Amino acid sequence: MFLRIDHVGIACHNLEEKIKFYEETFGVQVVHREVNEAQGVREAMLHIADGEGGGSYIQLLEPLGPDTPVGKYLAKRGEGVHHIAYGVSDVRGAMGELAGKGIRLLDESPRHGSMNSSIVFLHPKDVGGVLTELVEAPRQ
Amino acid sequence: MFLRIDHVGIACHNLEEKIKFYEETFGVQVVHREVNEAQGVREAMLHIADGEGGGSYIQLLEPLGPDTPVGKYLAKRGEGVHHIAYGVSDVRGAMGELAGKGIRLLDESPRHGSMNSSIVFLHPKDVGGVLTELVEAPRQ
Repeated sequence: MFLRIDHVGIACHNLEEKIKFYEETFGVQVVHREVNEAQGVREAMLHIADGEGGGSYIQLLEPLGPDTPVGKYLAKRGEGVHHIAYGVSDVRGAMGELAGKGIRLLDESPRHGSMNSSIVFLHPKDVGGVLTELVEAPRQ
Repeated sequence: MFLRIDHVGIACHNLEEKIKFYEETFGVQVVHREVNEAQGVREAMLHIADGEGGGSYIQLLEPLGPDTPVGKYLAKRGEGVHHIAYGVSDVRGAMGELAGKGIRLLDESPRHGSMNSSIVFLHPKDVGGVLTELVEAPRQ
């Protein structure tokens, strides 16, 4: 089902400071920024590598406010890894397959993700405490 | 500095149960198992993808006892993402570069990692709350 580790989502208080840190410390570069109002985050994708199954990124996430999912996460756990996202070829097909195995989906249908991808989140309690996202890249 | 997302390390209470879950739910396969006494863990690597910079894996980690780093992590935070590991070509060189930038290293010299790699951990407080590992794959 998984084509790649698409990205690791990291929650932070200040997106611009954290981008600067990653760029200056590790030499990685921002390839995309966006504000996702529906998810309540300001985010940036930092490119790590490319593979047969697509690119891999670090996704830095700053909440748009304290009452957003990432805002609540930061208040409870502090800065750190928020979720893992895996690339899939067919997010709707994967949703059906996983629902059939009893995995709860946090979205009824795919929604907009970074860089025009289609995404779904799986319930972390059904994936060993890991908030898990599936990402279908846009058609080229 | 980073060649790939080498792996995401996930802490769990029962390695065999979690392997079975990942295999049956997502169709990923175990390609390596080992017990790392020095780190106090029993671990398995599940292959996700290959890229120009090497392979990407999920690493499942079960502590050998409650007084190990992963045992303490589980007691405090429960099951979930424990660390992110990035592939590098020269772990000693990366250590020198990062120490020069003020990043604290948790190891004075590289130590043994999964699949005969050489690894070092960076202090999570210096990397925005993320326990970060660098991995140099063994020479082919």
